[in-house]
Amino acid sequence: MISALQQARYAYIPKLPAVLSQSGPFAGLKAGGATESVDNQDEIRAIFPDTYGLPTLEFVAGPKKSLPAVKAAVILSGGQAPGGHNVIAGLFDALKAINAESQLYGFLGGPSGLIEDKYILLTEELIAQYRNTGGFDIIGSGRTKLETVEQFAQVSKNCQKHGINAIVIIGGDDSNTNACALAQYMLSKQTGIQVIGCPKTIDGDLKNDWIEVSFGFDTATKVYSELVGNIMRDANSARKYWHFIKLMGRSASHIALECALQTHPNACIISEEVAQKRISLDQIVTELCELVTKRGERGDHFGVVLIPEGLVEFIPEMNKLIAQLNDLLSLRKDSFEQLPDMAAKISFVAQQLEDDSALVFNNLPALIRAQLLNDRDPHGNVQVSRIETEKLLISMIEEKLAKSGSKVKFTALAHFFGYEGRCAAPSNFDTNYCYSLGYTAAALIAAGKTGYMASLRNIAKAPEEWIAGGIPLTMMMNMEQRHGKAVPVIRKALVELAAKPFQSFAAQRKTWGINTEFVYPGPIQYFGPAEVCDQPSITLALEQEK
Amino acid sequence: MISALQQARYAYIPKLPAVLSQSGPFAGLKAGGATESVDNQDEIRAIFPDTYGLPTLEFVAGPKKSLPAVKAAVILSGGQAPGGHNVIAGLFDALKAINAESQLYGFLGGPSGLIEDKYILLTEELIAQYRNTGGFDIIGSGRTKLETVEQFAQVSKNCQKHGINAIVIIGGDDSNTNACALAQYMLSKQTGIQVIGCPKTIDGDLKNDWIEVSFGFDTATKVYSELVGNIMRDANSARKYWHFIKLMGRSASHIALECALQTHPNACIISEEVAQKRISLDQIVTELCELVTKRGERGDHFGVVLIPEGLVEFIPEMNKLIAQLNDLLSLRKDSFEQLPDMAAKISFVAQQLEDDSALVFNNLPALIRAQLLNDRDPHGNVQVSRIETEKLLISMIEEKLAKSGSKVKFTALAHFFGYEGRCAAPSNFDTNYCYSLGYTAAALIAAGKTGYMASLRNIAKAPEEWIAGGIPLTMMMNMEQRHGKAVPVIRKALVELAAKPFQSFAAQRKTWGINTEFVYPGPIQYFGPAEVCDQPSITLALEQEK
Repeated sequence: MISALQQARYAYIPKLPAVLSQSGPFAGLKAGGATESVDNQDEIRAIFPDTYGLPTLEFVAGPKKSLPAVKAAVILSGGQAPGGHNVIAGLFDALKAINAESQLYGFLGGPSGLIEDKYILLTEELIAQYRNTGGFDIIGSGRTKLETVEQFAQVSKNCQKHGINAIVIIGGDDSNTNACALAQYMLSKQTGIQVIGCPKTIDGDLKNDWIEVSFGFDTATKVYSELVGNIMRDANSARKYWHFIKLMGRSASHIALECALQTHPNACIISEEVAQKRISLDQIVTELCELVTKRGERGDHFGVVLIPEGLVEFIPEMNKLIAQLNDLLSLRKDSFEQLPDMAAKISFVAQQLEDDSALVFNNLPALIRAQLLNDRDPHGNVQVSRIETEKLLISMIEEKLAKSGSKVKFTALAHFFGYEGRCAAPSNFDTNYCYSLGYTAAALIAAGKTGYMASLRNIAKAPEEWIAGGIPLTMMMNMEQRHGKAVPVIRKALVELAAKPFQSFAAQRKTWGINTEFVYPGPIQYFGPAEVCDQPSITLALEQEK
Repeated sequence: MISALQQARYAYIPKLPAVLSQSGPFAGLKAGGATESVDNQDEIRAIFPDTYGLPTLEFVAGPKKSLPAVKAAVILSGGQAPGGHNVIAGLFDALKAINAESQLYGFLGGPSGLIEDKYILLTEELIAQYRNTGGFDIIGSGRTKLETVEQFAQVSKNCQKHGINAIVIIGGDDSNTNACALAQYMLSKQTGIQVIGCPKTIDGDLKNDWIEVSFGFDTATKVYSELVGNIMRDANSARKYWHFIKLMGRSASHIALECALQTHPNACIISEEVAQKRISLDQIVTELCELVTKRGERGDHFGVVLIPEGLVEFIPEMNKLIAQLNDLLSLRKDSFEQLPDMAAKISFVAQQLEDDSALVFNNLPALIRAQLLNDRDPHGNVQVSRIETEKLLISMIEEKLAKSGSKVKFTALAHFFGYEGRCAAPSNFDTNYCYSLGYTAAALIAAGKTGYMASLRNIAKAPEEWIAGGIPLTMMMNMEQRHGKAVPVIRKALVELAAKPFQSFAAQRKTWGINTEFVYPGPIQYFGPAEVCDQPSITLALEQEK
């Protein structure tokens, strides 16, 4: 059974940039100058000799050509993001426009499907069921890392078996880093297999001058803003609860920032600011206590606080504690695991930690100490995403208020929103953007390009005005330490404190904090007036303001 | 600042039943025969001698009359529900249509405002800011019980001071029970003050042949279904998590049932079935383990389970345990509170409980034992709504699977949705329904009625076809035990296992369980095709099927 909305959305025709709706995948290409990587140019050039320095590309009107059929492969890689199905639909439609005999292989379950040769042949009938829908369920996704030469060789072999001459990798920064290495491999081995990336992640941390946003960010933040707004209206009606809402987004706080710009919470913590200004946990708690007290004195015993999922890793002393715990629990694994219960484990750890970290550890609420020791990954590392930061803050505020003898009422509720937004039906923006990304990827394939990411610019404007093209994957890279080794990776875009989105937030947060200036965005709309249905994220709009 | 959607929704004109849009609040009244209470007729008649047995009322076309200005009071009582602002808007507009000099006093913060004489005079300018919006923030709500003769006398005094001759109480079953008592008081004291109730509660447990649904249920269940559907699409894309989703709704499982009918989860527990069939916690866990195993054997290591908030109170042995804990912690309060830590408290309780309850208690996960002992209300009672039933089930399933030596993968995530839906912007249905309820309440006032609840029937159809009228509050009452005393209360509507909504679920749940037949409803739409924007809840549609 299909919902009425999904059925109605099948009828939506995604919008393309003018150049692609006019010239289709036969658009011509205008090349920019040679490019450099964002840093460590020598190292990056040495690692990617065949794809380094490629020019940026922009599509321009071109005549319809007669082109041979393309056999392309596509994978979805990593966490879900709204619009993935439309990237595939755009890719499929453009491949068929190139040549009706073109074929699109959907490899199943992410990179592992490509390595293990598990696939389905995508047909119009199948694609039709997924147009303009959320989810990655058409072919599934996976987190296998496609990074070794052996894996590349296997992928090459599998593609050659099917006659596949292009691979489209829909993924985040890691997956596109791997796409870059795969492109280099395919060139160096003269396989003739092209590799094109598409920028996906709700976290919004894959962006730069050419990739204005990763797909899914728009929809996910609109879903979270709907929920935050609904909770705000409840807080403002019941007038007795503080709601602490943790929002997905591990490494960057773009999601929390966008939701703050949409809804005007009483507080929103930005991890990048915490790290840069070296704000301690105690400072965060103290400031929130002051806010609770100030509002309480006005009779406002309620409020809404937004917290980015990755916060604890950005708080200097917590970051140090977690690093020490990871070392300790890996070095003393056996002794630790033989301890009879949580109380014994906590006291063991407290004794073994360095003094300052032991103090931090001992001051944490019992629930959080247990989570730090309980939920570890197979390598013994603390699973930061499992730490209930929202409850940590509530508990520490309760304690601090009690200790200070404060009489202010403070009753708090904790929420975490993440899975609610990753597979939502895409907003009109993401519907168009994703379809255009897929279409652009196919046009890059038709033009014989490899080692590129599909790029659309000027996207705060209407789709007709979008500029389609490609950006060399090497251009986004720099060298970073991973497990003690310098490796080439696409640089993550963190929230920049000097940029307009944060500045706009910083200029207003005091007023939002003390007053109640909540905004209630409501659910994503598809059929109404343009100002309701077609607005890009505030982050994007601010970034593109002249 | 106001969101684009809120701004656009201001322009929506709520639809009224034909009789009210044609005759306005001057509609005539057709009276049915004398009525009886649903049970305990003699007791109810004795308690409400002046309002018992009143006829049901239905509005019919009538000529415009010249009527004196009305001074009416309105309060919002209890938990938030989407559409409350529109009840007030409908009431306001109808009062002004009766006579342009009519006035509406909004008493602040629920019943306490009425007792303490805290109010604002509602104006067109103020109402305009709240039309078609969610929340109760226009005048706030509260949970003070308006039930003593002293309170009634104070309310009467306050109303007489302002010249108020009618009170509209927007609330759930408890608040309307109190409205009934207040109406009786006002009649017996010949104050001339009329009392009219309006049926509010997202829980959907205030309904009967005349009140087909309480307002807010439609919107809240649509918001929860959006989120459940989004999580389902994520589950089906990632294929590695079981999501356990607890849904608000303490005494009745209507919300969980409606969401199940909307989204087709792998399992949905209905509290009423658990209680009626005396299903034990172990049986629930065993059945879920079987489901996890069966799906796991097909390679489907994912699923979605819906759980009603109040479940633990309906599980026979948990209900008994909670009752014993309440007694024990109240009787032995002092000894219990002197115990040094949670471990000591748990062992104290385990020793003092009767054998069977001690066994149940000892088998619960540590987290839940702590929640049972930690989160108690001022009377020492266990706060059932604070028990994380979703985590209880996950933990017990993990344990049972581990004990059975099962190799099936089971990784589960817990969610709770409640506050996200209580103040959402009302669906078109609730927008129209609430406005019509308020309008009907005013028409009942104009007709000189008291002790009635505003009633709209045939509401699965388009608003023009709705039948507007009133139902005597006494008609819904029976005697129930409260704190060891028989008192008159409006009978709560629980999920009926023999009725169509549950039957429809029961007929399909096996298939939904093993297969993956998720439906993704998506967000509430306001501007699109009727089949997307104007569908009533499935529960209502099934209940009204001939």
